[in-house]
Amino acid sequence: MKIVIVGAVAGGASAAARARRLDEDADIVLIERGEAPSFANCGLPYYVGGVIETRDKLLVTPQQRLIDRYRLDVRTHTEALRIDSQAKTVFLRDLQKGNERSESYDKLILSPGASPLRPPIPGVDLPQVYTLRDLGDADRLSQAASQAEQAVVIGAGFIGLEMTENLVHRGIETTVVELADQVLPPWDAEMVSSVTEHLRSKGVKLELADAAESIVPVENRLLIQLRSGKQLLADLVVLSVGVRPENKLAVEAGLEVGQRGGIKVNDQMQTSDPDIYAVGDVIEVQHFVDGAPVQIPLGGPANRQGRLAADHIFGRSTRFRGTQGTAIVGVFDMTVAMTGLSEKSLRAGGIAFEKIYVHPSHHASYFPGAEQMSIKLLFALQDGKILGAQVVGRHGVDKRIDVFAVAIQAGMTVYDLEEMELAYAPQYGSAKDPVNMAGFVAAGVIKGDQPILHASDLTDGSNRFLLDVRSPKEYSTGHIPGAVNIPVDELRGRLSEIPRDCSVVTYCQVGQRGYLATRVLAQKGYQVANLSGGFTSYLAHAAASKSRDA
Amino acid sequence: MKIVIVGAVAGGASAAARARRLDEDADIVLIERGEAPSFANCGLPYYVGGVIETRDKLLVTPQQRLIDRYRLDVRTHTEALRIDSQAKTVFLRDLQKGNERSESYDKLILSPGASPLRPPIPGVDLPQVYTLRDLGDADRLSQAASQAEQAVVIGAGFIGLEMTENLVHRGIETTVVELADQVLPPWDAEMVSSVTEHLRSKGVKLELADAAESIVPVENRLLIQLRSGKQLLADLVVLSVGVRPENKLAVEAGLEVGQRGGIKVNDQMQTSDPDIYAVGDVIEVQHFVDGAPVQIPLGGPANRQGRLAADHIFGRSTRFRGTQGTAIVGVFDMTVAMTGLSEKSLRAGGIAFEKIYVHPSHHASYFPGAEQMSIKLLFALQDGKILGAQVVGRHGVDKRIDVFAVAIQAGMTVYDLEEMELAYAPQYGSAKDPVNMAGFVAAGVIKGDQPILHASDLTDGSNRFLLDVRSPKEYSTGHIPGAVNIPVDELRGRLSEIPRDCSVVTYCQVGQRGYLATRVLAQKGYQVANLSGGFTSYLAHAAASKSRDA
Ligand SMILES: Cc1cc2nc3c(=O)[nH]c(=O)nc-3n(C[C@H](O)[C@H](O)[C@H](O)COP(=O)(O)OP(=O)(O)OC[C@H]3O[C@@H](n4cnc5c(N)ncnc54)[C@H](O)[C@@H]3O)c2cc1C
Ligand SMILES: Cc1cc2nc3c(=O)[nH]c(=O)nc-3n(C[C@H](O)[C@H](O)[C@H](O)COP(=O)(O)OP(=O)(O)OC[C@H]3O[C@@H](n4cnc5c(N)ncnc54)[C@H](O)[C@@H]3O)c2cc1C
Ligand SMILES: CC(C)(COP(=O)(O)OP(=O)(O)OC[C@H]1O[C@@H](n2cnc3c(N)ncnc32)[C@H](O)[C@@H]1OP(=O)(O)O)[C@@H](O)C(=O)NCCC(=O)NCCS
Ligand SMILES: CC(C)(COP(=O)(O)OP(=O)(O)OC[C@H]1O[C@@H](n2cnc3c(N)ncnc32)[C@H](O)[C@@H]1OP(=O)(O)O)[C@@H](O)C(=O)NCCC(=O)NCCS
Repeated sequence: MKIVIVGAVAGGASAAARARRLDEDADIVLIERGEAPSFANCGLPYYVGGVIETRDKLLVTPQQRLIDRYRLDVRTHTEALRIDSQAKTVFLRDLQKGNERSESYDKLILSPGASPLRPPIPGVDLPQVYTLRDLGDADRLSQAASQAEQAVVIGAGFIGLEMTENLVHRGIETTVVELADQVLPPWDAEMVSSVTEHLRSKGVKLELADAAESIVPVENRLLIQLRSGKQLLADLVVLSVGVRPENKLAVEAGLEVGQRGGIKVNDQMQTSDPDIYAVGDVIEVQHFVDGAPVQIPLGGPANRQGRLAADHIFGRSTRFRGTQGTAIVGVFDMTVAMTGLSEKSLRAGGIAFEKIYVHPSHHASYFPGAEQMSIKLLFALQDGKILGAQVVGRHGVDKRIDVFAVAIQAGMTVYDLEEMELAYAPQYGSAKDPVNMAGFVAAGVIKGDQPILHASDLTDGSNRFLLDVRSPKEYSTGHIPGAVNIPVDELRGRLSEIPRDCSVVTYCQVGQRGYLATRVLAQKGYQVANLSGGFTSYLAHAAASKSRDA
Repeated sequence: MKIVIVGAVAGGASAAARARRLDEDADIVLIERGEAPSFANCGLPYYVGGVIETRDKLLVTPQQRLIDRYRLDVRTHTEALRIDSQAKTVFLRDLQKGNERSESYDKLILSPGASPLRPPIPGVDLPQVYTLRDLGDADRLSQAASQAEQAVVIGAGFIGLEMTENLVHRGIETTVVELADQVLPPWDAEMVSSVTEHLRSKGVKLELADAAESIVPVENRLLIQLRSGKQLLADLVVLSVGVRPENKLAVEAGLEVGQRGGIKVNDQMQTSDPDIYAVGDVIEVQHFVDGAPVQIPLGGPANRQGRLAADHIFGRSTRFRGTQGTAIVGVFDMTVAMTGLSEKSLRAGGIAFEKIYVHPSHHASYFPGAEQMSIKLLFALQDGKILGAQVVGRHGVDKRIDVFAVAIQAGMTVYDLEEMELAYAPQYGSAKDPVNMAGFVAAGVIKGDQPILHASDLTDGSNRFLLDVRSPKEYSTGHIPGAVNIPVDELRGRLSEIPRDCSVVTYCQVGQRGYLATRVLAQKGYQVANLSGGFTSYLAHAAASKSRDA
């Protein structure tokens, strides 16, 4: 068995290592265009920021180890140019010597990844305009950063924000320009409005709903002209506006690709040519939740897909389950995470859903250091199936998103979240964990115990009595315009103040007291609903709309 | 509907609050013997230690709020003395005024909890011998701690170790005496030998496999006489040797109780009298994994059971799923967690299982601050079903145990762990998360790709060639007696040094290189197995056996 693998990092190196374990005698050729195989792409921003202090830390599995330990035929500085799928041959160029040669294969695995997009704007190819994908990029950017005072990051996706944090960490005044009206576009806007605020509190300037139209060198610096008319000056620009699958080899070999360029594969990672497998950022995958074709360029799936491709080559029964889009990013002291579908993808896909917000403490509130987190849970009203979750906060966010991720993978419902037995001691969680809480609320909504509405529903012009059930002190520091204040604890004695001829909307700070108020009112014959997530979610929505309208 | 609830903390207060939400008009009487309802039992050790600084933090839901917000009839300092289940009446004594009265009920919920065991040894009732259950206990202990220089904690369960940490935090020299030959008896011994070491490194003295036989006052101090003959001097003793269900009311009312005294309930939390529900520490539950009757006195289940009891009273369809024993404890800088069955309970139950150990970094090893954690995964060899997991380390332990807990609840297998899509960025995990790793290894074991054995198997006298595949440097700093060193990277060239007439056992530091070596050797015709968890697990087993033999 001779296996040739194109791309020697996440998907490729994983496939190669697994293949060796499965067959000690196979010929395994690992082709890599760059200088090093098996490096930590995901660590690059932190290397640029000086958080990862030495470059060799990034070489997760150095080339010599791949040779000694896995007996791989590793060819760096070597580009795969072309595939002849009839002859089962791939043509290679040695980028240092310049010569070409061909390599036959029994099975070919493509894991070439995805390359940073470069939008076609004037100046985008200037030397001070950087993208970040490999070690060379990181070295250049790190070098440039050591002399920069001001930087502009174009694109507020996860790599853009990681770069922003790291540039700030190096003392560089940084402005982020983002086309969308929010940071972190895969998330729903109201879930990341706190991230926007947090970035600003760290001195980052944000230009949302704006775009760079040109980049012009001015003396030793760059002038970035925005669509809004604003102009920014910077010593360097980082472009992070997304990636495009490196599908050239595949397209030229006639392999099927999807609409957005990702190579199509079956559940065994085989392309339209069954002797050619493709894995990682270059492929189109099925979304686990709705089965839609998507591109989700993340390290975990790439690693697992590489392993599965090797398994299938050696006759193991395998099935890739699709990708559920589980993602996480640190933004200074905050953590932002999601799994499954977002509200916007549910809407785009025309999938019916309900959503709830809760804002619990990350651990027992009586234990010092408790911090609030925000959870948005998206679920099917019909059967309670979990469709997606987003969690934002300071601590314990990664834990909750992983719990939701597993729940989605297991096909669980919000009723399962209610009953979930999670580890509790006061430093780690609560007897009713935030995940249970989200389940309680969602289950209550489905069963009709928790009639809710959302901030966006408030503007539909209906005649509603808006009831703020917080304390007078909370009310006085800010409330929804038009709201009347009756603290929940006084509610039973003050029912006469609430009109019976229109529907009532209750709210509190996070949703819990508002819910209690709905229980009282509903049982006294009022038509009532609670604002999910309370004033906290109201403000988040308002902040998101403000960016949208800006 | 009139509901009387005995016990106003975790299970009782949860039932009461939920009942109020479900029925605004119900009469809900909440009976509590102690001074306060709804306090944070789980915070008591940290209050004694001064970590939780003010006492009112412990009053999670103060009495007046239960009255104002939930309209509960809360009676503190009131003890339920007796139930007349025929007359559906419970007899109460006001502990302050001394008078008695009866209260009728439609439904009675018992959530009286469990009381600390006091072993029948001389001196156990001396005033300087404390147990910790309620606010009064915490006040007394806190007061005593402020004058103490030396303390003895009897019992190294989770409350004992929390108390130990907190006494040390207050500058008190603390000795722990434990009957078992390990700390944290619910865990398997080899998983907590690192905890023993950690405690010692913090200055804690440990007397394992020993017991207090008497406590004698000596001047103002106590002399604790141990079975081993050792004598300890202390200013105070904390007893934490387990709890016993407070089943007196139930037993006297003729309700069925299990062998260990827990009230028997059905999946709807009803006792043998369908109008009497019981929840929390006082009940016997079915273990989720094997269905065996167990007592698992933890806050999460108590809270959920209370909620379910209220649900059932108001006609909701409910089913308690059993408890899976998910538990976590912080011990200074370490976190120790488990879910499902331990190896010892599997053995005791005669359930077939296999186990694997891995020791991965808690996040990407190239990102600063990565710390090793240890995972033990217990699973069925037949179908890969997950039976239990234990995780010990410094960071990220709570996350992994929750992931395993959900996987168990979902009936998942080790194959599901392989495919699990968890959130990855370098600060939070790895592209192949520790959970995936455990899945890879376990699946490999079942499929025969990863033949393994365990440290305990090494002593069966078989003739084996013990092959240490680490570097010479690692080998020289300690290895298993009799092992021959051939680094994995040299293995293919040195096969001639390995005898073919006996089986080979490979090992490395954590198991991964040893596994690679087995792949090479097995495919070259050797009969070979890898020591699961490598030298790290070997040392952990050795440390555990040493305590056992001591
Ligand atoms: C800055 C940065 C941060 C990231 N952070 C995270 C994170 O926190 N979490 C996460 O999950 N993911 C993260 N990712 C994404 C993750 O790195 C990718 O999803 C993953 O590496 C994809 O694996 P792959 O094997 O498909 O491609 P890659 O790992 O990109 O490897 C492809 C390799 O193929 C080589 N190649 C391409 N074409 C050819 C050719 N024709 N001939 C020879 N060689 C070729 C390339 O040089 C490249 O080295 C990050 C990515 C970047 C760039
Ligand atoms: C120090 C300590 C630390 C803990 N730490 C944790 C932890 O970290 N994680 C965790 O999950 N669990 C922990 N627990 C366990 C957790 O507190 C219990 O599992 C939970 O409180 C049980 O709830 P319950 O309602 O059954 O009993 P309890 O919460 O104990 O409430 C029972 C109440 O009933 C009252 N009562 C009893 N009999 C009568 C009667 N006849 N009449 C009137 N009142 C009566 C008692 O006074 C008591 O207040 C800890 C417990 C203690 C003591
Ligand atoms: C490291 C790399 C070369 C792949 O190697 P790999 O051996 O497949 O992966 P890992 O090192 O994670 O090890 C996993 C293997 O070790 C085994 N293993 C891990 N710990 C073990 C232990 N304690 N005992 C026994 N086996 C163990 C697993 O079972 C698995 O083997 P299997 O696939 O045959 O079941 C490749 O992942 C890589 O270079 N990654 C870095 C680049 C990258 O991923 N970038 C994107 C993210 S930054
Ligand atoms: C607090 C206590 C009185 C119980 O009150 P509770 O209202 O049942 O529990 P919580 O305060 O956790 O709130 C859960 C309820 O609020 C709802 N809720 C929580 N957050 C919400 C939000 N943002 N929006 C709407 N509803 C929300 C939940 O749906 C749930 O209601 P439901 O059961 O009707 O579905 C009781 O748990 C208690 O005193 N606990 C402390 C003692 C203890 O547990 N000790 C042991 C551990 S230390």
